[in-house]
Amino acid sequence: MPINAYAAPSARADLVPFEYEPDELKPDEVEIDVHYCGICHSDLSLIDNSWFMSEYPLVPGHEVAGVIKAKGAAVTHLEVGQQVGVGWFSRSCMTCPQCMGGDHNLCGTAEGIAMGRYGGFADRVIIQSAWATPLPTGLDLANVGPLFCGGITVFNPIVQFNVQPTDRVGVVGIGGLGHMALQFLNKWGCEVTAFSSNPAKEEEARRLGAHQVVNSRDSAALENVAGSFDFILVTVNVPLDWEKYVAALRPKGRLHVVGAVMEPIPVTAFSLLMGQKSISGTPLGSPATTATMLEFCARHEIEVMTEQFPLEQINEAITHLRDGKARYRVVLDCRG
Amino acid sequence: MPINAYAAPSARADLVPFEYEPDELKPDEVEIDVHYCGICHSDLSLIDNSWFMSEYPLVPGHEVAGVIKAKGAAVTHLEVGQQVGVGWFSRSCMTCPQCMGGDHNLCGTAEGIAMGRYGGFADRVIIQSAWATPLPTGLDLANVGPLFCGGITVFNPIVQFNVQPTDRVGVVGIGGLGHMALQFLNKWGCEVTAFSSNPAKEEEARRLGAHQVVNSRDSAALENVAGSFDFILVTVNVPLDWEKYVAALRPKGRLHVVGAVMEPIPVTAFSLLMGQKSISGTPLGSPATTATMLEFCARHEIEVMTEQFPLEQINEAITHLRDGKARYRVVLDCRG
Repeated sequence: MPINAYAAPSARADLVPFEYEPDELKPDEVEIDVHYCGICHSDLSLIDNSWFMSEYPLVPGHEVAGVIKAKGAAVTHLEVGQQVGVGWFSRSCMTCPQCMGGDHNLCGTAEGIAMGRYGGFADRVIIQSAWATPLPTGLDLANVGPLFCGGITVFNPIVQFNVQPTDRVGVVGIGGLGHMALQFLNKWGCEVTAFSSNPAKEEEARRLGAHQVVNSRDSAALENVAGSFDFILVTVNVPLDWEKYVAALRPKGRLHVVGAVMEPIPVTAFSLLMGQKSISGTPLGSPATTATMLEFCARHEIEVMTEQFPLEQINEAITHLRDGKARYRVVLDCRG
Repeated sequence: MPINAYAAPSARADLVPFEYEPDELKPDEVEIDVHYCGICHSDLSLIDNSWFMSEYPLVPGHEVAGVIKAKGAAVTHLEVGQQVGVGWFSRSCMTCPQCMGGDHNLCGTAEGIAMGRYGGFADRVIIQSAWATPLPTGLDLANVGPLFCGGITVFNPIVQFNVQPTDRVGVVGIGGLGHMALQFLNKWGCEVTAFSSNPAKEEEARRLGAHQVVNSRDSAALENVAGSFDFILVTVNVPLDWEKYVAALRPKGRLHVVGAVMEPIPVTAFSLLMGQKSISGTPLGSPATTATMLEFCARHEIEVMTEQFPLEQINEAITHLRDGKARYRVVLDCRG
């Protein structure tokens, strides 16, 4: 049975209905009925070929929430009918040091669900079963999609770099990623500061868990927080006044980037070495870290704030996101 | 009794004899008879005012090896006659979170021995006792000076960032710092690669502990080691082809800078986030880490390769270092 998807026929084009016949289910794969799929900024980057690696027709979509429809012969840990989510990755080799070490997200040959294959803006999707993460009870299928990209992107570095509940942390950018990061870090026990260029978001940032809000366009305000933070998480993908953020770190602090800022970040060695500071980046997390995040979300009632569009209105949904109007994450209803 | 030192009267000037009357010994201080003092590239930076913070007359010297001549009333852990070494720092507040946490080297008000006071190119020097680290038996006073700046600068990040004996590591620059780093990392149990622009140093790099030598001017050679290293230690203070070194890291790898490269390091977020990579810097180490290093040096017979000049020939010694002729560290004999 063909899969009914939406595809960009060429760079920057509107998406159009696109039908394709999937390959036969491999032994380690599951077929998932897509109920919802989030739209992420990186879908726009793929559609626009911003990273110069898109192939067309391109079916985006890497924040899938759905139900297992069928499973391959070798899949024993998942059941037909089970609710699962899928993010950026749809397969990894399972044998390299990274996969064997639990860092499947760092596998050098990991397959992106919309890279050289077709993604989640569709009624169904087929992926390697290891990358289908079961939902714990207490999460709403309609809202979990964004956790599988935006959510895990900001949750993963908290785990990887051992952020402590006693840490003072900052989140730069209160959008699709940032609104989840504020909640994660607040529930993690940290003292949380939101950096936003939009003063209108201050009240909401506080409601989401920020103890303090700093206007990121106010140079003096940035200087006032010099030496304050153990960990600053940058969720935006635009150039910042990087030296001021490095200066805002405490000794041993880390400036961590998850937004795909294209312009080089010019860091001076001096600004790092005087205070033993680090700058780093991470991609999405491993399946195990994703499962940990889902449990944390259920236990702490993390609220993914979404706006829903039917799959047929995908171009309107994309425009809404492009225009910076999303509050905070756009989800497509793919149940057709 | 006045202290007989050598000072630069102004930026980039030759050093001349300079006498000053020290303040009375404070309760927490020790007075040290300087027997030897290493010359470090950062002494040249101070003499030249390269960092725009020098004050003249400037008495450089921050790799002191000597013997305690007198101690203040509150000093109970050191004895007159004891051999000690002193590095960049001569005092810290002892009460801030960094000092209280054992990271005295990150104290925001730590005093540099040649910053706003007079350093170790002298017959005596007075410092806070906490910063005088006793020598374990088995180390030669004539050669230990360079451990207190060059040595601890490259030893400290190995400790701070938890480099493992199973790691594959690289050292960029086989000079004053690098020749010690190769030995440290070899004895640490790591697989060690030396990056050098000077093919004539290959044999010596291997003798010092490198298992492999890569010509850092050979672009293809750098590309050949892509994805190879858990930790690359940059000991040079000149701009590198940074993206190639980031690419040379394994997933979760760290590019660590201890040279005060003045030009910004332009890192792209993408190159960090795809492999969860970090870039960082450290200053010198704490007194406790310095003591640990000295024990490690004694146990493993780490060889600090020095060339000796009498203090009176300080300008010749400086020229030797400026001309890139030092193999590998220049030490002044200050016993007069």
